[in-house]
Amino acid sequence: MTPLCRRLGIDLPVLAFSHCRDVVAAVSRAGGLGVLGAASMTPEDLDRDLTWLDRECAGRPYGVDLLFPAKSAGDDPAELAGRIPADHRAFVDALRTRWGVPVRRSEPGHNRLGGMPTEIDHLMTHANAHALWEVARAHPIRLVASALGPPPAEVRAETTRRGMLLAGLVGDPRHVRHQLAAGVDVLVAQGYEAAGHTGDITTMVLVPQVVAAAGDVPVVAAGGIATGRQVVAALALGAQAVWTGSVWLATAESDLDPVVKEKIVAAAATDTEKTTSYTGKPTRQLTTVWTEAWRTPEAPAPLPSPVQQVLARDTVVSAFEHQVTPVMGSAAGQAVGLVTGVRSVAAVLDDLRMQMADAVEAVTRLADDAG
Amino acid sequence: MTPLCRRLGIDLPVLAFSHCRDVVAAVSRAGGLGVLGAASMTPEDLDRDLTWLDRECAGRPYGVDLLFPAKSAGDDPAELAGRIPADHRAFVDALRTRWGVPVRRSEPGHNRLGGMPTEIDHLMTHANAHALWEVARAHPIRLVASALGPPPAEVRAETTRRGMLLAGLVGDPRHVRHQLAAGVDVLVAQGYEAAGHTGDITTMVLVPQVVAAAGDVPVVAAGGIATGRQVVAALALGAQAVWTGSVWLATAESDLDPVVKEKIVAAAATDTEKTTSYTGKPTRQLTTVWTEAWRTPEAPAPLPSPVQQVLARDTVVSAFEHQVTPVMGSAAGQAVGLVTGVRSVAAVLDDLRMQMADAVEAVTRLADDAG
Repeated sequence: MTPLCRRLGIDLPVLAFSHCRDVVAAVSRAGGLGVLGAASMTPEDLDRDLTWLDRECAGRPYGVDLLFPAKSAGDDPAELAGRIPADHRAFVDALRTRWGVPVRRSEPGHNRLGGMPTEIDHLMTHANAHALWEVARAHPIRLVASALGPPPAEVRAETTRRGMLLAGLVGDPRHVRHQLAAGVDVLVAQGYEAAGHTGDITTMVLVPQVVAAAGDVPVVAAGGIATGRQVVAALALGAQAVWTGSVWLATAESDLDPVVKEKIVAAAATDTEKTTSYTGKPTRQLTTVWTEAWRTPEAPAPLPSPVQQVLARDTVVSAFEHQVTPVMGSAAGQAVGLVTGVRSVAAVLDDLRMQMADAVEAVTRLADDAG
Repeated sequence: MTPLCRRLGIDLPVLAFSHCRDVVAAVSRAGGLGVLGAASMTPEDLDRDLTWLDRECAGRPYGVDLLFPAKSAGDDPAELAGRIPADHRAFVDALRTRWGVPVRRSEPGHNRLGGMPTEIDHLMTHANAHALWEVARAHPIRLVASALGPPPAEVRAETTRRGMLLAGLVGDPRHVRHQLAAGVDVLVAQGYEAAGHTGDITTMVLVPQVVAAAGDVPVVAAGGIATGRQVVAALALGAQAVWTGSVWLATAESDLDPVVKEKIVAAAATDTEKTTSYTGKPTRQLTTVWTEAWRTPEAPAPLPSPVQQVLARDTVVSAFEHQVTPVMGSAAGQAVGLVTGVRSVAAVLDDLRMQMADAVEAVTRLADDAG
């Protein structure tokens, strides 16, 4: 296994990002590293899930993914809502009427419906990120990932004190030096094809560039990876492990709404798109009537983050509450094109191990021929 | 080596697309397969270059890349020019004045300046494609690649008669069945990061999808590949060889204008973009003042192919003739971010072989650990 796998204490070079603690535990128990996407949780929910993971992972390592926003455009939802122009509000009101989306039932920011991606409801503010870190640092986390920009100095100091590894995500080789300056232990090179916040450089091009810029710091490849052959490809590119996400959305353990799981299974790679229509920042999402509406000529330009999120969330949350299926979506990478059914985490990982062996054999046969 | 390499008669699983016959010959002599990009040549120039290659490749195999457009929007430049709206012409005239681009010297469609990408000047019409095929089929070509859509039945029949392999390019797994129905011997899976005409699916995701859909037909991976580690990654994904292009633009043998070679060496992956501003079809190009101008709010929408090409070519050709450097560009993939200097073809391939060995060793070490 790679040196990074040994440091993480895993025997499969696969990190698995999920908002669902059941997926995280299943991956960690199977020899990979489950990473809980916690950036949009409430501190109370995070503490509950980490306490559960401490027990369910049975001593196997797990990770947590957080955002540490450098600056926040504002924390007060009412103040943020006041910045929404009238024609943006009218545009969304017309969409709700057209699609038949009722008024939401739950309180904004406190949605506890199962099955809905949590990102859309909780504003990613500096205050919330700080509160989450206060909760997380008390748990025996093996890896802390900073998903947007370099981690702050106090997080670096605290992870060192507690023996946690710290990872930083980059989408451009020019951002590597900022992460190295912040002292990260691991770089996650995330390509254009990934779900969530991405740049324009693809995994195939980005990973070798980040490896070249990283010096001795190990690199994890992210973006488009769902199969064992791709894991071996990433290792050939110089990565020491892969970061996966979309492949877990439609697993049996995932708490994603069954309607969206079906969409993931049916989706081609081209049924995802980069859009700013959910949060104001470019993230890759399943194409839905919502993302399509914001691409029409009559649509206003999406607002900056997090004002667009304040505008979007009530409609999107209500669509889940009332099962208005055309509006229901999820962050999703092009790897959904490789997902062909709802399966257990263990079944996905069994296949992945076999595919890895096939790919290693294909590559070593090449070496034998050349030798 | 892979079965496809044996069929092609090469010992390095690297196909190298270039408009420059010197690059093609150098790659073929070094054990790869040079592929001459001939779609925009005149039949006379193609015959001259193939006669030269028959001699210079010294018995080593080479290929030719052609377009077989299913239908042509028109072949008569004067008629096509008549379809350009007045405000499009005024927009380009204002750009020429702003940038100081004089009237072109050469006849449209007959530019013989060295150093300029030929795609922009020759209209890719059905008549021209047919004339090129009439020339090409008389030469001992090992591989004929159809770069846009499935090849016509007469080309399939003729390549079979002459023992040539026929390859078809795909950018979406849903296009595979059309190519298989046309009887191709090889599928080239070309990702979003490639130069030229591309779709939105990245190489990392597209290659496994095309391999899965291809059955027994071998797949070549294209898009973003410039290094030996990426070659091994592509083989791990199930490809039997790679298709390269951008890495050859800045080689010593390339006849590309030195100004553009310098731009290629300096360019990051993000200094390329998909644009319809040259031909009306989406192609990945170096970012220049030309591509930027067509993204500004005051720009009209680019015209359909080939009318946009008729509008664009005089300005672009004149910029090369008069060395108006900010306007000078080239089709280029994200792999330019991995090109760090002007080197000989042999030096690039020597490095690539060494990197391949490193990657194979990294992957086999993984297998040894797991075993």
